[in-house]
Amino acid sequence: MPESRLVTFTTDFGLSDPFVGILHGVVLNIQPDTRIVDICHSVAAYDIFDGAWTISQAYRFFPPRTIHVVIVDPGVGTERRPLVVETESHIFVAPDNGVLSLIEARESKFVVRQVNAERYFLQPVSRTFHGRDIFAPVAGWLSKGVAPGEFGPEISDYVRVPLPQVERIGENSLRGVVIKVDKFGNLITNIAAADAPELFAACTPAFNILIAGRTIARLCGSYAEGAEDEVFAIVGSSGYLELAAKQASAAEKLAAGVGSPVGLVLGSS
Amino acid sequence: MPESRLVTFTTDFGLSDPFVGILHGVVLNIQPDTRIVDICHSVAAYDIFDGAWTISQAYRFFPPRTIHVVIVDPGVGTERRPLVVETESHIFVAPDNGVLSLIEARESKFVVRQVNAERYFLQPVSRTFHGRDIFAPVAGWLSKGVAPGEFGPEISDYVRVPLPQVERIGENSLRGVVIKVDKFGNLITNIAAADAPELFAACTPAFNILIAGRTIARLCGSYAEGAEDEVFAIVGSSGYLELAAKQASAAEKLAAGVGSPVGLVLGSS
Amino acid sequence: MPESRLVTFTTDFGLSDPFVGILHGVVLNIQPDTRIVDICHSVAAYDIFDGAWTISQAYRFFPPRTIHVVIVDPGVGTERRPLVVETESHIFVAPDNGVLSLIEARESKFVVRQVNAERYFLQPVSRTFHGRDIFAPVAGWLSKGVAPGEFGPEISDYVRVPLPQVERIGENSLRGVVIKVDKFGNLITNIAAADAPELFAACTPAFNILIAGRTIARLCGSYAEGAEDEVFAIVGSSGYLELAAKQASAAEKLAAGVGSPVGLVLGSS
Repeated sequence: MPESRLVTFTTDFGLSDPFVGILHGVVLNIQPDTRIVDICHSVAAYDIFDGAWTISQAYRFFPPRTIHVVIVDPGVGTERRPLVVETESHIFVAPDNGVLSLIEARESKFVVRQVNAERYFLQPVSRTFHGRDIFAPVAGWLSKGVAPGEFGPEISDYVRVPLPQVERIGENSLRGVVIKVDKFGNLITNIAAADAPELFAACTPAFNILIAGRTIARLCGSYAEGAEDEVFAIVGSSGYLELAAKQASAAEKLAAGVGSPVGLVLGSS
Repeated sequence: MPESRLVTFTTDFGLSDPFVGILHGVVLNIQPDTRIVDICHSVAAYDIFDGAWTISQAYRFFPPRTIHVVIVDPGVGTERRPLVVETESHIFVAPDNGVLSLIEARESKFVVRQVNAERYFLQPVSRTFHGRDIFAPVAGWLSKGVAPGEFGPEISDYVRVPLPQVERIGENSLRGVVIKVDKFGNLITNIAAADAPELFAACTPAFNILIAGRTIARLCGSYAEGAEDEVFAIVGSSGYLELAAKQASAAEKLAAGVGSPVGLVLGSS
Repeated sequence: MPESRLVTFTTDFGLSDPFVGILHGVVLNIQPDTRIVDICHSVAAYDIFDGAWTISQAYRFFPPRTIHVVIVDPGVGTERRPLVVETESHIFVAPDNGVLSLIEARESKFVVRQVNAERYFLQPVSRTFHGRDIFAPVAGWLSKGVAPGEFGPEISDYVRVPLPQVERIGENSLRGVVIKVDKFGNLITNIAAADAPELFAACTPAFNILIAGRTIARLCGSYAEGAEDEVFAIVGSSGYLELAAKQASAAEKLAAGVGSPVGLVLGSS
């Protein structure tokens, strides 16, 4: 008998209500030996991009065959479809609103199915808590070994969300944006190694980063290298360029946040 | 050998201290293969009704034989008794202060025992952390298979907390109250299907809900149906009437909260 | 085949990012049946003493052979070493910055190894998230049965952090300090039974506690014994003297917090 697959949850439900506990209960009531991991329940409320970013950062560290449930669902109770998505190594369960767009961007295989097999839902299905009534039960049955194909037909017209792109402005200039502020106040941009390989190399050239009216010209190798009161650039563990401060919040120091434009000019001027 | 029973925790301990981790450790030290689920640790501090509401929403989604530990315990260290309670499908461990009153209201079987078998406690028993020294160890031993009857004698004089009742005011009018504000700012009332079956039916009559000086006359089927800036009524997943706003906090928009009176008048006026 | 060892996490990562979920994923990717417990992720950011205090309160309640990962790591990415530490019953994984100093103070056996076996790390090792790339993988391999000695050589020049000591001032006077404010606003001091056995005895003598310009002369046996608006002393479950208030925050009432000096004078004056 195959063992149960691991289930993870990423939601905007917070931890102040019994919502998350109920999700666990529903899965365990279907398959009592399923292992469940809470990736994050603090996705910004209704924020599909924040949910997309959160799961895209975490999923690849889990074992193959893991089932990742991602619930950021402002359209709960409307006609928006529930999905089961297969990539090479993982399965995703989510509403059809683009919250898996960053997974699609990273994976070659991305097979999307519309979930319409209501026999797997908790009855009666509410119109306000599909996490409990649809997504968690589907994850439970997937964990128990039901094949993705049992839940509904493959579709290709699923929702894709346009992701903030880095703009190239002339030969040595990029324009990016802050996509996330983490708990420590680090500002994570959408500028990756592919956009500016020079900055991610062992030996970096002179550069200027323009953000919130400030110019930042130093790249540190670790947070601790920063000087007192300095905001510096750093290659983050997410693979993106970050702006950080030593034991302090760069977001506060710069009064910047998600959506703040970030200019990058390579070469001294 | 029977497998270990699942243990859940619902407390007002928060997550800023090692309290919750310690509860897990104590259970696992007694029965290492017990599965533990945190339902919620954000019950309002000392608020017995909030604890009662939280567990009452969650417990029925867990597998039969689950042990639910509920700790909201302003009387810790006094003469108030620890209890083990059996219903048809679940076991509860809690202080004797009424925190299980909403379970009793929903279950036909409700057998209450006073826990006095000190051989199951962590010694020495502190007077400020019975979660660690009494409730978690009792849950651990229950999970390991010790029968509820081993912990102490059945009692009938346990504490019951009066729950906020919906008042009927004339033929078509009810007076209820907000009993919970969830993470999204939805105002959950104590008005259930049994109180106003018309509102929970497929086709609802005209009505007016009076709250915080405002009148609400529209019932939406999903959160997304709400208009910009509108506060509307909705049948919540909890089985109670809620007041909600589309991607916004109804609590903030109405400046209402737990305890706010809610009038309901059926029929157009 | 020996079963997997339990792994716990204590960090300052918070719960608003995918960091904690990633730690779990990394461990489970190495050893899928490891049980993981989150002791606390709300250690004050960069605060080594707060991390030391948190793990010191929790570890002894876990089963023997548990692996405790403690990550408060302002020096991530610098030359500071990762450590694996063995005590009589537990294993600890942490950066070499003193965060295990309170464990050392409580244990007779304390064998410290520098982790330098890079074959156990996640590659490439980032310079900003050693929790993911070093500490969690080491915990995963320890859980799988790799012996501590495999990770690197024993060292004796590890970092020790000086802990706030209780000062004796004359025959009947002590000077301590508040070391922690818990979620309920209780002020936990560093004054233990060994410092003032009289206060921890069944029958306590007259005393005065001086804190934040106030004098406290009453020791209660339980929180509920406090009078309205009173701040009183109590022997906390942590084994230290606390200042508390009944269903209220002593920290707010006294406008005191971590670092506030606490004087204790035994005997009436």
